[in-house]
Amino acid sequence: MSALDETHDLGLRSWVESANAPGVDFPVQNLPFGVFTVRGASAPPRIGVAIGDQLLDVAAALDAGSFSGASDVAQLAAASCRAASLNALIALGPASWRALRLALSRFLRDGGAAAPPGAAARDAFLMPIADAELRLPVDIGDFTDFYASVHHATNIGTMLRPEQPLLPNYKWIPIGYHGRASSVVVSGTAVTRPVGQQAPVAGAAPAVGPTQRLDYELEVGAIVGPGNAQGTPVRIGEAASQLFGLVLLNDWSARDVQAWEYQPLGPFLSKSFASTISPWIVTQEALAPFRTAAFVRADGDPAPLPYLANAEDARSGGFDITLEVLIESAAMRRAAQPAARISLGSARDLYWTFGQMIAHHTMNGCNLRAGDLLGSGTVSGPTAESRGCLMERTWRGAEPFTLPGGETRAFLADGDTVTMRGWCEQGDRRIGFGECQGTVLSAVAG
Amino acid sequence: MSALDETHDLGLRSWVESANAPGVDFPVQNLPFGVFTVRGASAPPRIGVAIGDQLLDVAAALDAGSFSGASDVAQLAAASCRAASLNALIALGPASWRALRLALSRFLRDGGAAAPPGAAARDAFLMPIADAELRLPVDIGDFTDFYASVHHATNIGTMLRPEQPLLPNYKWIPIGYHGRASSVVVSGTAVTRPVGQQAPVAGAAPAVGPTQRLDYELEVGAIVGPGNAQGTPVRIGEAASQLFGLVLLNDWSARDVQAWEYQPLGPFLSKSFASTISPWIVTQEALAPFRTAAFVRADGDPAPLPYLANAEDARSGGFDITLEVLIESAAMRRAAQPAARISLGSARDLYWTFGQMIAHHTMNGCNLRAGDLLGSGTVSGPTAESRGCLMERTWRGAEPFTLPGGETRAFLADGDTVTMRGWCEQGDRRIGFGECQGTVLSAVAG
Repeated sequence: MSALDETHDLGLRSWVESANAPGVDFPVQNLPFGVFTVRGASAPPRIGVAIGDQLLDVAAALDAGSFSGASDVAQLAAASCRAASLNALIALGPASWRALRLALSRFLRDGGAAAPPGAAARDAFLMPIADAELRLPVDIGDFTDFYASVHHATNIGTMLRPEQPLLPNYKWIPIGYHGRASSVVVSGTAVTRPVGQQAPVAGAAPAVGPTQRLDYELEVGAIVGPGNAQGTPVRIGEAASQLFGLVLLNDWSARDVQAWEYQPLGPFLSKSFASTISPWIVTQEALAPFRTAAFVRADGDPAPLPYLANAEDARSGGFDITLEVLIESAAMRRAAQPAARISLGSARDLYWTFGQMIAHHTMNGCNLRAGDLLGSGTVSGPTAESRGCLMERTWRGAEPFTLPGGETRAFLADGDTVTMRGWCEQGDRRIGFGECQGTVLSAVAG
Repeated sequence: MSALDETHDLGLRSWVESANAPGVDFPVQNLPFGVFTVRGASAPPRIGVAIGDQLLDVAAALDAGSFSGASDVAQLAAASCRAASLNALIALGPASWRALRLALSRFLRDGGAAAPPGAAARDAFLMPIADAELRLPVDIGDFTDFYASVHHATNIGTMLRPEQPLLPNYKWIPIGYHGRASSVVVSGTAVTRPVGQQAPVAGAAPAVGPTQRLDYELEVGAIVGPGNAQGTPVRIGEAASQLFGLVLLNDWSARDVQAWEYQPLGPFLSKSFASTISPWIVTQEALAPFRTAAFVRADGDPAPLPYLANAEDARSGGFDITLEVLIESAAMRRAAQPAARISLGSARDLYWTFGQMIAHHTMNGCNLRAGDLLGSGTVSGPTAESRGCLMERTWRGAEPFTLPGGETRAFLADGDTVTMRGWCEQGDRRIGFGECQGTVLSAVAG
């Protein structure tokens, strides 16, 4: 895991004033990476780092000499940001990530390597995030989705198999499956309600039509890098060096389609229409102060098998990230009502660490590549409030809830905007993820 | 579907003499596309077309003026072959594929557009396939694997659930799942026996070690293009225009790992260590004479749902491709014994057409991209000889077979070479796929 260094100093402030406000998502201790285009311009995408409500164009800052006092490794890492995605930077590996973070921190902090640039100089490499269109930060080669919350697996299992909620393999295997990479979209992209087959009733043919049970799934997504060669597993002790950073992930799901299609090969069209990620990758380094112990297994639970066991992973393989889901309906939007919080949970509640997921994923020699996305699976905690999808929150739709304004919801309605937020807190300093948001559009006519 | 034209004329012969031998895989009627490097050279990969035992470098032929009489569309398509993968050509769509095929046919045939080039000229764009190293022909964005053989699904189901071999959804849904794209390799790549968890016995912990039940799966792979926009389904009537061509696919499987891991989200590590494809993409156009009716459903089977039903697809959505699997053990190789045929089947036996798979895959708005790979799933026929994997061939290992030389096999042994072949026949003309081959290496030490 990353060690703490000067970039984590809570006393650091930035000459970008908006980064110093208490509770802001992107203080100088965060420095998450994203990809943007300038709204209304046709230039190719560029790589940026969020700082307060501004965005630093990394390659432009390099060209302006902003990192001239930094190490060669840092300058090479900054040069890898002359690209339309973060894959090249991610492929360089942890030493480069750390070096670039240090250079960015020293450049952006008050009292840093040089005097703060003047207003004219800033224009060359700084712009308001509000003027940018944020893109997918990485080209995702493969998207794997895990099932790492035991609370989620138990809740879903209780609905489907009350006699055996948790399958016998759950506490031995970080269960996962391959997802669809092509349909991963960035926050802000509208999501069209998918059409699909639904289970037949009493000997009739299956219904084909828009899903009646559209759901979100609150997940944490890991961006993998630099990757491993096919045939060469990543051992649990090395797994931390394969984790570039984290994003929020909404793995939209059509529950009626899923129930009918998923045997025997797993979910397919119920998931593949869209998965939304937040635009800023919060790096492993930024999250170092918020590492926490792995899930404490219950008495009687088996210990992790040796290839999944590691003292450091047990001590600090988890992440203390608070996770929130909000819904705003079309009617609420019209009435200017604020979005309503639907759940509040924590990534602490994951049974498996990302280190265990990576060690398991590669134990058979499967190769990960820089920029791959690993979803945690729905993050649910032990309480009703911390359940990370509507399937659990409304218990398969049997217990609908009421939105401010009086509408009820068992599953998502057209026009609903789902917003996910995530943050770590240390006093009044927050390492935030920004938002992962999508609005449901009505289905395409058949 | 593609219409027949002058490129399909059985009377055509090529000035590349080896292409005219009876039964050769790559006559002038075939013209499959691949990607190669020159063995021993360090130049970047290039695009080639197989003709007899030779390979035509498409961009080099273009530069030599070989297509100077061809249409603009054909010349632009040839120019898209100045690339290290076929994705750009595939993205151009069917009109470009057909135009380039016509130009290649006219250039390579006897009595074609120009006099055959002399020996010196040929050296600029023609080389023996034996001197080339064949690469993956496409960058595969996503790999989806279907389960389209009802014989395979019934056989596997009989082993797992004798009371209900075929699940209720099978005849309604072209069942499929997401596979792993990163570990797709080209024929000739050795495959390391994967390590995995195997089901615990009588309350013990699961075993972790090399799979004891390594299997192949004989499949046909479709290379998709040009793709569809997210949110816009490909209708069954348009699906043929999304099919660039076919390859052979060996979806290597670790059956003991699969049995323990696959509930509830489907196969994962039991498949993701490697999938092998043949290097030459046989185009939809080359296969046009071998289109055949879709599978004839049994009395009592439901008709395909409207979104999967189309008169042309029913009439000619199938492919009449003979498929063969051979095994050669290390001992056989030492004794110079020829590989032994293990099965002989046909792609005619698929219950679902690739058109139906594409229409289903996209009905929810999922976007396909140029170069995506769709596997048919194991192709098994109604007879024991036509079963496309060892799991079926030896009935879960209960009925091992004997190789020439006396070794027995229930599943694959280290050193075994699995070779798949496929071909279509019309008189003494064959449209062949070449080989899809891999040799099993022993597991990596834990």
